[in-house]
Amino acid sequence: MIHFQQAQDHHLADLVALLADDPLGSAREDPSVPLDPGYVEAFDAITADTNQLLVVALLDQTVVGTLHLSFIPGLALMGAWRGQIESVRIRRDHRDAGLGQAMIEWALERCREKGCRIVQLTSDKSRAEAHRFYERLGFEATHEGYKLRL
Amino acid sequence: MIHFQQAQDHHLADLVALLADDPLGSAREDPSVPLDPGYVEAFDAITADTNQLLVVALLDQTVVGTLHLSFIPGLALMGAWRGQIESVRIRRDHRDAGLGQAMIEWALERCREKGCRIVQLTSDKSRAEAHRFYERLGFEATHEGYKLRL
Repeated sequence: MIHFQQAQDHHLADLVALLADDPLGSAREDPSVPLDPGYVEAFDAITADTNQLLVVALLDQTVVGTLHLSFIPGLALMGAWRGQIESVRIRRDHRDAGLGQAMIEWALERCREKGCRIVQLTSDKSRAEAHRFYERLGFEATHEGYKLRL
Repeated sequence: MIHFQQAQDHHLADLVALLADDPLGSAREDPSVPLDPGYVEAFDAITADTNQLLVVALLDQTVVGTLHLSFIPGLALMGAWRGQIESVRIRRDHRDAGLGQAMIEWALERCREKGCRIVQLTSDKSRAEAHRFYERLGFEATHEGYKLRL
């Protein structure tokens, strides 16, 4: 039985492992345990902020997916709240089973509850399969996504 | 003399006017005064959140530019904070004077102070001039920017 909820401390190592098990993530994450303190500090910052929702997908208590949802107030669009989705991952052995779609739809429902009028995300241009996935769900690639490393 | 600071209540009508004086914004904003309560509620939500910085560029106390900077914690990239820039506008009669560059550089400095390791923004694909501007500043369009209206 799939269940989505806010991540708890004891999910953190599994979440980092999910982020690392990815063509792009493998070069920039370190899933070794004990976890780098940067992950623990980030987890604490996320869970302390009521506008951040770190989501975990659980299949019989096993972590099989994650995404990070941020609620962002803004003046634009007549003062619309935005939902923003980052760091979407489904465990390698649980893909193509509708789990990703169910997780995004669960996140969209949280956005509706919060009163968001727009939801946004960016996806690396190399992730062609992800793009088809988001387009099937109704997202439109209307924008260029710019990044700058400091 | 140009000065950048957090926006105050008395700047709000000028900020909304800036958002509306734009090829895309003109269709989705309403700068009429008294302002729609949606703008006032959004302003209050932004200023109540220490991870949101609504920036105003002032030239001798006149509003000539704005952007909205959000600081977002995240697990990805070893637990990196992200700076995110939205709703960048320079008043029509003050463009091409280096003001936009100075405002973005001021925002990047705030991101460095906060310890952000990445800064991101999205820009509508129709805004070719804006894309050249961000690329000159070192941003790379590595991502597709997806939006979904709820």
